[in-house]
Amino acid sequence: MSSGERRAVVLLSGGLDSTTAMAVAGAEGFACYALTIDYGQRHRLELEAARRVAAALGARQHVALAIDLRRFGGSALTADLPLPTRRDPRDMTDIPVTYVPARNTVFLSLALAWAETLGAEDIFIGVNFLDYSGYPDCRPEYVAAFERMANLATKAGVEGRSHFRIHTPLIRLSKADIVRRAVELGVDLALTWSCYDPRQGRPCGVCDACVLRRKGFEEAGIPDPLG
Amino acid sequence: MSSGERRAVVLLSGGLDSTTAMAVAGAEGFACYALTIDYGQRHRLELEAARRVAAALGARQHVALAIDLRRFGGSALTADLPLPTRRDPRDMTDIPVTYVPARNTVFLSLALAWAETLGAEDIFIGVNFLDYSGYPDCRPEYVAAFERMANLATKAGVEGRSHFRIHTPLIRLSKADIVRRAVELGVDLALTWSCYDPRQGRPCGVCDACVLRRKGFEEAGIPDPLG
Repeated sequence: MSSGERRAVVLLSGGLDSTTAMAVAGAEGFACYALTIDYGQRHRLELEAARRVAAALGARQHVALAIDLRRFGGSALTADLPLPTRRDPRDMTDIPVTYVPARNTVFLSLALAWAETLGAEDIFIGVNFLDYSGYPDCRPEYVAAFERMANLATKAGVEGRSHFRIHTPLIRLSKADIVRRAVELGVDLALTWSCYDPRQGRPCGVCDACVLRRKGFEEAGIPDPLG
Repeated sequence: MSSGERRAVVLLSGGLDSTTAMAVAGAEGFACYALTIDYGQRHRLELEAARRVAAALGARQHVALAIDLRRFGGSALTADLPLPTRRDPRDMTDIPVTYVPARNTVFLSLALAWAETLGAEDIFIGVNFLDYSGYPDCRPEYVAAFERMANLATKAGVEGRSHFRIHTPLIRLSKADIVRRAVELGVDLALTWSCYDPRQGRPCGVCDACVLRRKGFEEAGIPDPLG
C-alpha cells in the first residue's frame, strides 16, 4: 500500500444508493476499489451502469466478480418469477420476493476478502434502513454483527493490527436525502440504474426499485435524469 | 420441504475434514446438500474428490459453485507463489501464505444463501481449531460470531421463525481423532484428497495439508489409503 493512501472497497451495483455511497467514500478521502457482484441478476443494465459509475467517480480499480446465485434458486431477481409491483416498504414482515437469500452477507464477505488482500480496513455499502424494502440484511444490528464477525475472521484481527469497519453512510437517510446527497457531491445520476425489470432498455416504472427511486426524486424536488 | 426431513448444507472440499463433517451430518440424520466452492484453487483434484465423496455419502444434491477469488490475488493457494513446507500449526502469529482472505466467511455466506433457499437451518463446516494451520477463521469465537450475524441477516431471523446453526463437529478434534471418527463412520478415505500441490496426480507429501494428513493417520495408527 502506498504510504498515506487510505483504501476502501466499495460495493457498487450501479444503482442510486451504491453510487452515492461511493461518492461519500471519495469525499472522505478514500481511494476507492469498486466491487460489483454479477450474481446472475436479470437487470444486466446494472452492470453497465456500475462500469460507468466506477470510471466517472475515479475508482482505482473495478472488479466485476461473477457468482451464479441462480444455482440456489429462490428469488425473483435471479429467476423467472413475476416481480412485485406494490408493497409497504416499512413493513418488516412483508419481505418481498425480490429478496436474494443472504445477499448482503455474500457481498460483504467478498468485499472483506478483497479488502484483506488490499490492506484496506474500510468497506462501504449503500444499504438503507428507512426505505430498505424490508430486507433483513439492511438493518443496523445486522451490519454491526457483520463487522464484529469480520474482525474475528481475519489475519489482521488475530494480530490485533487493524479493525475492519463497515461504512453505511446512507443507512438512516430517506431516498430523498440520498438524491440530495448525491447531487451535493456532484454525482451525475444519469449514469445510475435502478430498475429490476427494464423493457427495451428503459426503466419499467412499476417495480419496487423504480417506485422508490421516483419517490426519492419527487420528495427531493429534483428531476430524475432517467426520466 | 418434505415433512420431517431435516436438511443441512455441508461445505465439502473433498478433503479429509469436510468429508468427515459430512459423514457426521449424515449420521445425525440430516439430508445433506453438499456445496463445493470452486474458487480457482490450483489443486483441481479436490473438486473431483468432492464429487466422489458427495455421491458416496448420498448427498441429495451437490452444487459446485465457481467464484474466482484469484481476481483479488493474495494467496499461494490461488496464485503462483511458492508453497510453504514447514510451520508450527499451533503458532497463532504464524499465519501461512496458504491462507485465503476471508475464505470461510465467503464459504459460509454462500452456504447460508443456499440454506435459506432450501429452508435448511443447519450448516456443517469441517473447520478444526487444534491443527488448524493458523487460520483465524477456524476459531470457535469466529464461528459463534458468524452464527450470530447469520441469524440477523435473514428472513427467518426477522420473522423469529428459525435459527441458523453452524455445526463444527471437528473443531476440537485432533487430526488423528478425525481419521478415527471417519473410519468409525465407515467413510472410504481413499475418496478424499488433501494435497495443495499435487504432482502427476499424486500427493506431494511435503505441503502443509500432506504433513497434517500424514500426522493424523500415523497418530491414529491407521494406514492412509492414498499411501
